[in-house]
Amino acid sequence: MIKTFKSLIETVQKGEPKTISVAAAEDRDVLSAVNMAYKYGLIKAVLVGDARRIQAAAEEAGMDTMDFEIIDIPDKEKACLKAVELVNKGKATLPMKGFVDTSVILKAVLDREIGLKSGKLLSHVGVLGVKGFDRLFVISDSAMNIAPTLQDKVEIIDNAVKVANALGNKMPKVAVLCAAEKVNPKMPATIDAEELTKMNERGEITGCLVKGPLALDNAISPEAAKHKGISHPVAGNADVLITPDIEAGNILNKSMEYFGNAEKAGIIMGAKTPVILTSRASSDESKLNSIALGVLVAQYLETFKQE
Amino acid sequence: MIKTFKSLIETVQKGEPKTISVAAAEDRDVLSAVNMAYKYGLIKAVLVGDARRIQAAAEEAGMDTMDFEIIDIPDKEKACLKAVELVNKGKATLPMKGFVDTSVILKAVLDREIGLKSGKLLSHVGVLGVKGFDRLFVISDSAMNIAPTLQDKVEIIDNAVKVANALGNKMPKVAVLCAAEKVNPKMPATIDAEELTKMNERGEITGCLVKGPLALDNAISPEAAKHKGISHPVAGNADVLITPDIEAGNILNKSMEYFGNAEKAGIIMGAKTPVILTSRASSDESKLNSIALGVLVAQYLETFKQE
Repeated sequence: MIKTFKSLIETVQKGEPKTISVAAAEDRDVLSAVNMAYKYGLIKAVLVGDARRIQAAAEEAGMDTMDFEIIDIPDKEKACLKAVELVNKGKATLPMKGFVDTSVILKAVLDREIGLKSGKLLSHVGVLGVKGFDRLFVISDSAMNIAPTLQDKVEIIDNAVKVANALGNKMPKVAVLCAAEKVNPKMPATIDAEELTKMNERGEITGCLVKGPLALDNAISPEAAKHKGISHPVAGNADVLITPDIEAGNILNKSMEYFGNAEKAGIIMGAKTPVILTSRASSDESKLNSIALGVLVAQYLETFKQE
Repeated sequence: MIKTFKSLIETVQKGEPKTISVAAAEDRDVLSAVNMAYKYGLIKAVLVGDARRIQAAAEEAGMDTMDFEIIDIPDKEKACLKAVELVNKGKATLPMKGFVDTSVILKAVLDREIGLKSGKLLSHVGVLGVKGFDRLFVISDSAMNIAPTLQDKVEIIDNAVKVANALGNKMPKVAVLCAAEKVNPKMPATIDAEELTKMNERGEITGCLVKGPLALDNAISPEAAKHKGISHPVAGNADVLITPDIEAGNILNKSMEYFGNAEKAGIIMGAKTPVILTSRASSDESKLNSIALGVLVAQYLETFKQE
């Protein structure tokens, strides 16, 4: 099982480099991350976007564009469509968001003709590592689904579990987080959490162990779970943390980063392949982690499809 | 300005010890915290509850009950009422929750005849310190108000600002946290956050600087705020973090504790005095911090009233 980002990157390095298609690649930070991932032997890349600006940004990033194929499409929407089309046609393994709004690349991903639509819910899956814990945490949804319904949460869990699977965790422990560990009719999140637990018990959510409602402390700390008298394999040992809404998810993700000095990565799941997503504010390290995670999960999904 | 829990405790030690009334004191952990606070010179205490059990729990805790007044009221509801009545009659400065459900002591606090009702919204205010930050964070509401309305949030801010004031911060910087820093009609939390900012600009919320929506990173990290191009005195420098709902608040609080190794304290605000609240799972240190915080804020509110 992959328990650190170092081991994640080493695992991806062992495979053949996959090709990523970078949509609207005309950005120094994006190119710098792509170049680093190339140097690490994680990827090859097709840079789709404004060729002139890509060249300029590449110079700023001190990278040699001879190592990459460039497709000149200055229009951002069209560049996104081209990047997903390359994946659809097998010329690249997965797309990466460049200097373009997330909504624009997702629209391309969901395009009926040349996109990567699979009919499933798209959701953001974060992977975060905090010192002192023996595992990487898979967290969802911090960035896409604002107020997911019960059915949305089923799909959010499914997407997150696939990422945990790709990390080598065959039976992830999924905590459905709430503000408390008891069901309270005044707190709808606790009702959803209980229902998701039951659906898992009934075999309607498979490939993982689901428990909720759990407060964050009972989910990740065996001592806190014991203190509250909660005895369940997930309590205190959760690998996957599902938050009730985007606010809780976003705050958890950023709290782990800024207060817990977490290393992190993030991808969009639910399409035929993952979409690599890096935010402008994120560190070079985190961008590299996201690329490695995307490649790892794409490889896993391919194997999965072939079986 | 008080920037650490060490300095908080030293500040309270400088004053005359205040008397706290412990409601349903028959619990080893609660008594142990009360005894520690007594030894530190922070408080005197009246122990209200089942006298026989208090004696037994005190022995377990290795404390000398001669140092404390005991009022024998085995019934928990009545013990809570007595504890708040002692405060109402000036025989104690503020109440502390013992071995009783929070709802029971709050019902006593809100009792029209002998309670401590002030007509304001009760809210939980947490104070948390994380290494690497130059200030204590005031966080609300992690534990009481499930889905606060806009008006509730105005009162939640008011209660939190009073705590920041008591810590010596005369013009606290209040970030109204959301999942993003842009107003999005699909995310009601962002609309509330913008409205709270405007109310502050119009002078309808005073004694603090309010800014929202802010994501957690733009609220506490000057670099993240700069990256997003947000230039506002609160961005990156927030002291007070207001979460959109109880789930986000609870997860933030516990994430800071478990991933950020935060030291913490918590009280209920909105009544005539603070109510000291410690949870069973919290450390001895955190219980002591909560007692010290309660006393500090009670002192501050008294001065405030006299002015």
